[in-house]
Amino acid sequence: MPLKSLLMIPGPTPVPEDVLRACARPMINHRGPEYMELQRELIAGLKQAFQTSGDVQIFPAAGTGGLEAAVVNVLSPGDRVVAVPTGAFGRRFAEIAEVYGASVHRVEVEWGHAADPGEIAAALRNEPDARALLLTHNETSTGVLHDIQGIAREARRVNPDILILVDGISGMLAADLQTDGWDLDVVIGGSQKAWMIPPGLTFLSVSERAWAAHRQARMPRFYFDFSRMKKSMETDQTPYTPALPQLFGLQVALRRILAEGLPASIRRHARMAAATRAAVQAMGLDLFAQEGAYSNALTAVTAPADFPARTIRGAMREKRGVVIAGGQGPIKEAIFRLGHLGYVDDNDVLAMLASLELTLSELGHPLPAELGAGVAAAQRVFSQP
Amino acid sequence: MPLKSLLMIPGPTPVPEDVLRACARPMINHRGPEYMELQRELIAGLKQAFQTSGDVQIFPAAGTGGLEAAVVNVLSPGDRVVAVPTGAFGRRFAEIAEVYGASVHRVEVEWGHAADPGEIAAALRNEPDARALLLTHNETSTGVLHDIQGIAREARRVNPDILILVDGISGMLAADLQTDGWDLDVVIGGSQKAWMIPPGLTFLSVSERAWAAHRQARMPRFYFDFSRMKKSMETDQTPYTPALPQLFGLQVALRRILAEGLPASIRRHARMAAATRAAVQAMGLDLFAQEGAYSNALTAVTAPADFPARTIRGAMREKRGVVIAGGQGPIKEAIFRLGHLGYVDDNDVLAMLASLELTLSELGHPLPAELGAGVAAAQRVFSQP
Repeated sequence: MPLKSLLMIPGPTPVPEDVLRACARPMINHRGPEYMELQRELIAGLKQAFQTSGDVQIFPAAGTGGLEAAVVNVLSPGDRVVAVPTGAFGRRFAEIAEVYGASVHRVEVEWGHAADPGEIAAALRNEPDARALLLTHNETSTGVLHDIQGIAREARRVNPDILILVDGISGMLAADLQTDGWDLDVVIGGSQKAWMIPPGLTFLSVSERAWAAHRQARMPRFYFDFSRMKKSMETDQTPYTPALPQLFGLQVALRRILAEGLPASIRRHARMAAATRAAVQAMGLDLFAQEGAYSNALTAVTAPADFPARTIRGAMREKRGVVIAGGQGPIKEAIFRLGHLGYVDDNDVLAMLASLELTLSELGHPLPAELGAGVAAAQRVFSQP
Repeated sequence: MPLKSLLMIPGPTPVPEDVLRACARPMINHRGPEYMELQRELIAGLKQAFQTSGDVQIFPAAGTGGLEAAVVNVLSPGDRVVAVPTGAFGRRFAEIAEVYGASVHRVEVEWGHAADPGEIAAALRNEPDARALLLTHNETSTGVLHDIQGIAREARRVNPDILILVDGISGMLAADLQTDGWDLDVVIGGSQKAWMIPPGLTFLSVSERAWAAHRQARMPRFYFDFSRMKKSMETDQTPYTPALPQLFGLQVALRRILAEGLPASIRRHARMAAATRAAVQAMGLDLFAQEGAYSNALTAVTAPADFPARTIRGAMREKRGVVIAGGQGPIKEAIFRLGHLGYVDDNDVLAMLASLELTLSELGHPLPAELGAGVAAAQRVFSQP
């Protein structure tokens, strides 16, 4: 039979059957009572997932649209901004601010490393007029998870009123991200990650501080304008036609997410990540991310010198049906990335790892121990209570 | 049993079963070979539907995002623009240009009327520096279809190099719209209309003239940037994660659309519109749109003085399961709008009209003839070969 596909990339992630079926529900009038009830339920659920009592908005767009929305709604051309480009997505966030006229100071961080809260605080001391700090919770291109709580705390010590905008797209639900508890102003989510629904939606929280900034912010915006969205939401509407399939899916997925609970979701992701790291290292491969900054959502692995990432990925896909991701930007062939977020369980992770070990062996890459020793390392993690 | 729903609004429109099922396909890697093949097929099909040999791009966004993309990609702040706000969507197009810093001259047209090519030409003679003309093919808020061919021809006589940007969202495939044949620079489509797929995608054609303007255009843009999209499309990729469900659906829908053929699709819509107008008038109601400018996609009906639109719509929905639309903006309660576009056939139209006639009768609105005379007028249209 043709190969079954095991999708293990950091998004789009596998979508549960009942969510897929919800995405295929017949269309409804987006100005009618059925839609209004749906939207009320979705916003209430999103607030729980974002850990906020403030506003959350949904835009029909990819996560990149959410990054743009965050920037253009709270800033004005010429505003000083501190960005921390720790990888491809952090770079993108900074570039968006620049395209819209912000004056961006970049705290450079080596790819694979986590940003240091002290260095960010130092940058903020040098930029006393900075209006905003752009952060990436989980950098998808390098597999690095940031201590947003620590960074935000240090940043507020230096500049209590700074706007903290956090790209939470690939990390939220896989690792803790407390919008209100950590005093974050705009947190951006994206549907195709641990939310377990297809791509096409971005979610944004908006703090009181962000609303106050919004009222002064002069970057041009229309499609992504918070005020237009808020005005429509007052009557449970949207300013333009919403992406119904993803919203139908989100309803089912949110019920799943809230039933599991955020702590359990985070524990599940942390365990899968730990098992993946243990196995990969037992196969003699190196983790790309700095120790202590490992992502729960994906694991970035340095490709062995004798095999570019493309060779391993191609063999996994063509012979085993296992789809993993390559690197991005300057490290495209230097790493491959194993996704373990969203609708993924221990069995998916074990199958992926066993397939990776087999692929390395078949490609002639010397394993440090007998075949199976890699998977065994993951099994041991999963055997812990 | 609970009422079946007959969705007869000008978008979202009913989606065929096989398209809905395609929307529920499992996720794939948007950087893998399967996706690349999909995108190639979609772009080739869209070019046929847009009647262009030039570029067509797909963005994950509502149609409003498409309007924004058209404006920000070819204009600079301070550019003079002539807009023709013939209704809510024409107004929106003009407002977007203004938000991004264009200096907009509006050719005012009474709602329900079509823009006059001569008046537009006169406005262009008074604005010799105008860089762009913003037009609406089918104004969804008033049920007016414009003679884009005539307007474009007159406009080019006055200003041969002007950029002609056309909101084709609700009219394309229901009425003719020739991107290359009429020398249009950017035409914008939206998925939830006659394309027969759910909301979430906007499509844009880009002419050579538009590309030349794009290279000079300084309005800020990132998410909707044509150049970034074009660069990714060179390797059959996208600059960020695409909205897979709608793209899977588009593949199936495009095969249906191209199998029917554009002329047959337009004839079908024109017939359903003619039947609807005949029935509505036989029920003693007035059409809102000016004679000779009737839309093929929807029919706007003036609500009788004794019954606001809301009363008729509520009764249709709650007692008959027929979902029709109200008015928008200043004419919210003054009109109701009957959608007949996309995956809709004669039977759907007959059922909607019979239900409307019954509802008027039950509400106590005096019909000019016996019950059934309204539907009969539609039947006579459908009985013609």
